[in-house]
Amino acid sequence: RRGEMAKSTQLIDNEVFRAYVTYAAIVLIKMMLMSLVTAYFRITRKAFVNPEDTESFGKGESAKKYLRTDPDVERVRRAHLNDLENIVPFVGIGLLYALSGPELSTALLHFRIFTGARILHTFAYLIPLPQPGRGLSWAVGYSVTFSMAYKVLKTAWLL
Amino acid sequence: RRGEMAKSTQLIDNEVFRAYVTYAAIVLIKMMLMSLVTAYFRITRKAFVNPEDTESFGKGESAKKYLRTDPDVERVRRAHLNDLENIVPFVGIGLLYALSGPELSTALLHFRIFTGARILHTFAYLIPLPQPGRGLSWAVGYSVTFSMAYKVLKTAWLL
Amino acid sequence: RRGEMAKSTQLIDNEVFRAYVTYAAIVLIKMMLMSLVTAYFRITRKAFVNPEDTESFGKGESAKKYLRTDPDVERVRRAHLNDLENIVPFVGIGLLYALSGPELSTALLHFRIFTGARILHTFAYLIPLPQPGRGLSWAVGYSVTFSMAYKVLKTAWLL
Repeated sequence: RRGEMAKSTQLIDNEVFRAYVTYAAIVLIKMMLMSLVTAYFRITRKAFVNPEDTESFGKGESAKKYLRTDPDVERVRRAHLNDLENIVPFVGIGLLYALSGPELSTALLHFRIFTGARILHTFAYLIPLPQPGRGLSWAVGYSVTFSMAYKVLKTAWLL
Repeated sequence: RRGEMAKSTQLIDNEVFRAYVTYAAIVLIKMMLMSLVTAYFRITRKAFVNPEDTESFGKGESAKKYLRTDPDVERVRRAHLNDLENIVPFVGIGLLYALSGPELSTALLHFRIFTGARILHTFAYLIPLPQPGRGLSWAVGYSVTFSMAYKVLKTAWLL
Repeated sequence: RRGEMAKSTQLIDNEVFRAYVTYAAIVLIKMMLMSLVTAYFRITRKAFVNPEDTESFGKGESAKKYLRTDPDVERVRRAHLNDLENIVPFVGIGLLYALSGPELSTALLHFRIFTGARILHTFAYLIPLPQPGRGLSWAVGYSVTFSMAYKVLKTAWLL
C-alpha cells in the first residue's frame, strides 16, 4: 500500500502534471460557476422551466407566468454549453498531453493561454462584447487544444 | 513492457484510486442511462425531432404529427444535461483528487455523498419531487466537487 | 524530477495506454470539429442566435432577420450534443479501462469499434441516412462503453 501511495504522490510531484492539475481544476471550476450564474438570472428575471420551481411564487395561474424563457438566461446557458464543448476536450486532451512528456515552459504556455482565452470568452459572451471578441477568444482556446492534440498523437500514435 | 503493465496494475491496486474508479464508473453509467430513458419517453409519447425517426409510423403528413416536443421528454433531456454539467466535472476533478493522496476514508465520504446526491437528483427531477428536493440534491453534489477541487488546488498549485 | 519524467514517459510507453491515448484524441478531435460544422452552417444558412453575431450583415431590422433557427444548424447541434453524451463517457471510462490492465488486442477491438461507430453516427446524422442507420451506430458505441465499464468495475470494485 505504501508503494502505491508513493507512486501517486510522485505523479502529482511532477511539475508538468501539477501545472495541468492546477489549470484543469481552474477551468472546471469556472465552468461549474456558470450554473450559479444561470440560477442567479433565473431568480432575478423570474424565468423558470420546471413548474415545481415556481411554486414559491404562488399557486396555479399566478405561478404559470414565470414559466418562460428570458434572453439573459438563454445567453448564460449558451455560454455554459460552449464551455462543455470546449473545456471538456481541453481537460481530456490536456491530461494525455501532460503524460506525453512536454517541456514545462511549453506546457505552461498552452495551459495559460487556454485558461485566459476561456475566461475572456465568458466575459465576451455575457457582457456581451461586439464580435469578433467572442469569436477570437473561442478560436484561441480551440487552437491551443488542437496544438496539444497534435503533440499527443505524435508521441503516442498506436492505431 | 512487463514493467509498464505492472505499473498500471499498481495504480489500480491503490485503494483510493480503486474507489475513485468504482464511483466514477457508476455515475458515468447513471448518466448514460439517461439516453435510454429519453428513448423510452420519445417512443411511448411518440415525440421525435428528426423526420427520419418517424418514418416507421407512416409516410408524409401522418408521420409529421410525431415531430413535436413533449414535456416528459424535455424533462428527461434537462436532467441529462444537468448530469453532463455536474458529473463530468466530478469525474475530472475526482481523478486529480484521487491522485493528490487523500485519506481513503475522506475520499470514500466524498465519492459516496456525490453519487448518492446525483441519484437522488435524477429521481427528484423525473418524478418530480417538490422543491427544494432537486435543488438540495444538486447543491450537495456541487459542494462535494468544490471540496475536492479545494484539496486538489492546495496540493498541486503551480500556476 | 528525473524520476517523475521517466515515470510518465513509461505510462505513455505502455501499448494499451498509447492505443487509448490515440483513439481518445481522435474521437475528441472529431467531437470538436462539430463546432466548425455548426459555424459553417450558421454562416452559409445565415442563421444566428446572438444579436452581436449578425452586425456584419447590416444594422437594426435588416440584421434581425438572421436571428432565426435553421433545420440544418439544429441537426448539427443535436449531433454535437449526442457526441458530448457519448464520447465524454467513453473518454472517462476508457481511461479507467486502459489502467485496468486489459489485453492489447481486446482493448484495440473496443477502441476501434467505438471510434468507427461514432464516425458512422455523425455521417448518419448529417446526411441523414434512413433509420436504423443512426440508431444502430449509436447502439454499437454505447455497448462498447458498457463493455469497458463492466471490465473496469470487475477489476477495481471498492464501494
